[in-house]
Amino acid sequence: MGSIPSDDKYPLGFKALDENSLVEYIKSAPQIVSALGGDLNELSIKEVGDGNLNFVYIVVGPSGSVVVKQALPYIRCVGESWPLSKERAFFEMLTLKRHGALCPTHVPEVYYFDRAMAIIAMRYLKPPYVILRKGLIAGIEYPLLAQHMSEYMARTLFFTSLLYCSAKDHRNSVAKFLGNVEQCGLTELVVFSDPYRLSSSNRWSSPYLDTDVQSIREDIHLKLEVAQLKSLFCERAQALIHGDLHTGSIMVTENSTQVIDPEFSFYGPMGFDIGALLGNFILAYFAQDGHADESNDRQVYKQWILNTIEDTWNLFHDKFVSLWNENNHISGEAYPADVFNTPQLNILAQNKYMQDLFHDSLGFAAAKMIRRIVGIAHVEDFESIHNVQKRAYCEQRSLQFAKMLMKTRNKFESATQLVSAILQT
Amino acid sequence: MGSIPSDDKYPLGFKALDENSLVEYIKSAPQIVSALGGDLNELSIKEVGDGNLNFVYIVVGPSGSVVVKQALPYIRCVGESWPLSKERAFFEMLTLKRHGALCPTHVPEVYYFDRAMAIIAMRYLKPPYVILRKGLIAGIEYPLLAQHMSEYMARTLFFTSLLYCSAKDHRNSVAKFLGNVEQCGLTELVVFSDPYRLSSSNRWSSPYLDTDVQSIREDIHLKLEVAQLKSLFCERAQALIHGDLHTGSIMVTENSTQVIDPEFSFYGPMGFDIGALLGNFILAYFAQDGHADESNDRQVYKQWILNTIEDTWNLFHDKFVSLWNENNHISGEAYPADVFNTPQLNILAQNKYMQDLFHDSLGFAAAKMIRRIVGIAHVEDFESIHNVQKRAYCEQRSLQFAKMLMKTRNKFESATQLVSAILQT
Ligand SMILES: Nc1ncnc2c1ncn2[C@@H]1O[C@H](COP(=O)(O)OP(=O)(O)O)[C@@H](O)[C@H]1O
Ligand SMILES: Nc1ncnc2c1ncn2[C@@H]1O[C@H](COP(=O)(O)OP(=O)(O)O)[C@@H](O)[C@H]1O
Ligand SMILES: [Mg+2]
Ligand SMILES: [Mg+2]
Ligand SMILES: [Mg+2]
Ligand SMILES: [Mg+2]
Ligand SMILES: [Mg+2]
Repeated sequence: MGSIPSDDKYPLGFKALDENSLVEYIKSAPQIVSALGGDLNELSIKEVGDGNLNFVYIVVGPSGSVVVKQALPYIRCVGESWPLSKERAFFEMLTLKRHGALCPTHVPEVYYFDRAMAIIAMRYLKPPYVILRKGLIAGIEYPLLAQHMSEYMARTLFFTSLLYCSAKDHRNSVAKFLGNVEQCGLTELVVFSDPYRLSSSNRWSSPYLDTDVQSIREDIHLKLEVAQLKSLFCERAQALIHGDLHTGSIMVTENSTQVIDPEFSFYGPMGFDIGALLGNFILAYFAQDGHADESNDRQVYKQWILNTIEDTWNLFHDKFVSLWNENNHISGEAYPADVFNTPQLNILAQNKYMQDLFHDSLGFAAAKMIRRIVGIAHVEDFESIHNVQKRAYCEQRSLQFAKMLMKTRNKFESATQLVSAILQT
Repeated sequence: MGSIPSDDKYPLGFKALDENSLVEYIKSAPQIVSALGGDLNELSIKEVGDGNLNFVYIVVGPSGSVVVKQALPYIRCVGESWPLSKERAFFEMLTLKRHGALCPTHVPEVYYFDRAMAIIAMRYLKPPYVILRKGLIAGIEYPLLAQHMSEYMARTLFFTSLLYCSAKDHRNSVAKFLGNVEQCGLTELVVFSDPYRLSSSNRWSSPYLDTDVQSIREDIHLKLEVAQLKSLFCERAQALIHGDLHTGSIMVTENSTQVIDPEFSFYGPMGFDIGALLGNFILAYFAQDGHADESNDRQVYKQWILNTIEDTWNLFHDKFVSLWNENNHISGEAYPADVFNTPQLNILAQNKYMQDLFHDSLGFAAAKMIRRIVGIAHVEDFESIHNVQKRAYCEQRSLQFAKMLMKTRNKFESATQLVSAILQT
């Protein structure tokens, strides 16, 4: 892992960079220089600026390119009034490397990390790579998406869980990631608490959703369910999860899928990742009516999203269970091979595990949907619908579905049932 | 916290003491000297030696007394062939202090700790204090036991959970205790794995229990349940639990109850502590027939144990819920006061929480019973029944009950039902 002689240049070890000072910084970071092919003449540097929390610079030179991401000690889109530890860059780097080792096809390579400066340099995913959320808004099909994301989730979650690891290794890793406490705190606040109470950070399409928002605050059964999900999030160290796996953390082309931005990663419930993805797919689905126009009624595309939802879970299920079977002799802590010593027993254990995981995932999917409609951070899927009334209608249907899903998630037995329920909304 | 100039005396910072070298050690530890009233003449030092893992010295002088406990880097009752980190003394000390601060009436005071030497000096619980297990075998009633133990469990578990703490404080504490990984590993092995497979450490009353032991290894549903409990133990950081709360970790008189020996403590599921206690009470109950003789048929005493079981859960329930209500304004992470803002909502949340906790507790109670009959470490309740056939009969009934309990725990709705089920065995 590289480091620069930052003590000289930046007495406190940290300085917020900009497009100009970044050039100087790069000169003193050999690994970045080498990613740029050694040629620092005529560098083009552009801050991307569509992220909420951090600064991302795209650096392109004549012989190579690189993305440089810097975390500042506060939340970018709010400002210095909302401090947030820049150590999040350290955890992002750790997980890019760990998930990258487990699933190199779907995680960009990290070239360089500087802890004091909270800087990660990684592979630049050039166009035609685009943020998945933007592709979904544009109505573009990604035929391999479910295949790729199920592969990413199955591998990263399985291999960091007690299905594969010893409790000893697991506890050591869990302890390390407990340091990412401020990022977890942000999730606890904006996903699990604020949407269910009066909070000055909440926003919604007013006045259309005023009564919906109020009814969430008064929905006893919803609040009981979300409290259970919150406790699961806070207490259950099931696997090293990405922690922010929405469609804005995925970059895609027709043939390739790359997961970025795991700065919220920690050992938490697997369902939080799976649910983030499924929930954001469902939001994309309900937003389609707002994007329909005379040239495209989006009906075919809506069906593709539904297929993707169903495939994502089903492929994840199959890949995850395959990894379990293939690694049975390794004997992770949870199901030792000499206790789980018959095929029947393993099948029963797997069925129970996958059923519980499905229910967790649906609960978290619902929580992630709700918070994107009535909480602090909204999604472009809806924000880009300029007709406010249309947008509010899409949001209302999403909310209605999400509330039902959170309350009845344990009744769902398959992804097919999930898709039917979406269609019935 | 004290420390001795051990670098001089013990070049490696650690030395296993004995009754002779302990005197020299004490001289260089002012806090121990002061607990002994400053008078080191005519010290009586006796190693107690009834513990499985560590060495415990009772030191009595003319002006004071103290217990000195030392952890060696292996398991005492096995020997150097089974290494075990002496850091367990550090975690024992931490929890004696933390639980002691939360419930001073039921935890002995710590006078001194030396991390390199793995030594804790604490209050000597003089006779008539006796290890509770011995009292239960002797058929002695402790009228305040349920009251005291429910108080201890309610306070230590509530105040170290997310019902009271912020997620931030909680995660920091969880991380600290993840260092006690070797002790957790021992539990995972001897409680959750070995009893359910062939293992050279397992022992049982052979040949009487041979088929019972085999049928456990072949009991699919039991093995599925125990795997779930094991995952809960490994993954769920619910509260700072004692980790070894059997009747051999409690010292009692008629009026006082003291909890010792939290060397297995970590952030785990609350039900593991409650279950350890209930499970060991149930073992004591089933052992009574083996202790009955012409002078005492133990029928009255059996009823007292049943009452104690019922009272322990019911009082725990009430005290725990009271703490929840009293501290509602503090707003722990799990149920923020401005989300859980009506009495009805709080009652529903409490009912669900307590019901889940009851079921967890029954599952762990069953696991703790089973492992004491077919695993490595047995209990004096049965071991002291010299008629082997009688002992095997008591063990068989315990096993039968524990298997049923583990498999059907979620159907139990009250401690009364638990007691009825015991009576029906
Ligand atoms: N490796 C990369 N290659 C290309 N673009 C990237 C890369 N990483 C980030 N970006 C761009 O920068 C934006 C913000 O990055 P992200 O890691 O999501 O930051 P934040 O943590 O602030 O959300 C992304 O939406 C994407 O457009
Ligand atoms: N504070 C104390 N006062 C009196 N006796 C104690 C005290 N602590 C331990 N003992 C005695 O020493 C025995 C072993 O102590 P314990 O802490 O349980 O050790 P171990 O960890 O080896 O099980 C206890 O069963 C009890 O008889
Ligand atoms: Mg992002
Ligand atoms: Mg981010
Ligand atoms: Mg379930
Ligand atoms: Mg003990
Ligand atoms: Mg002990």
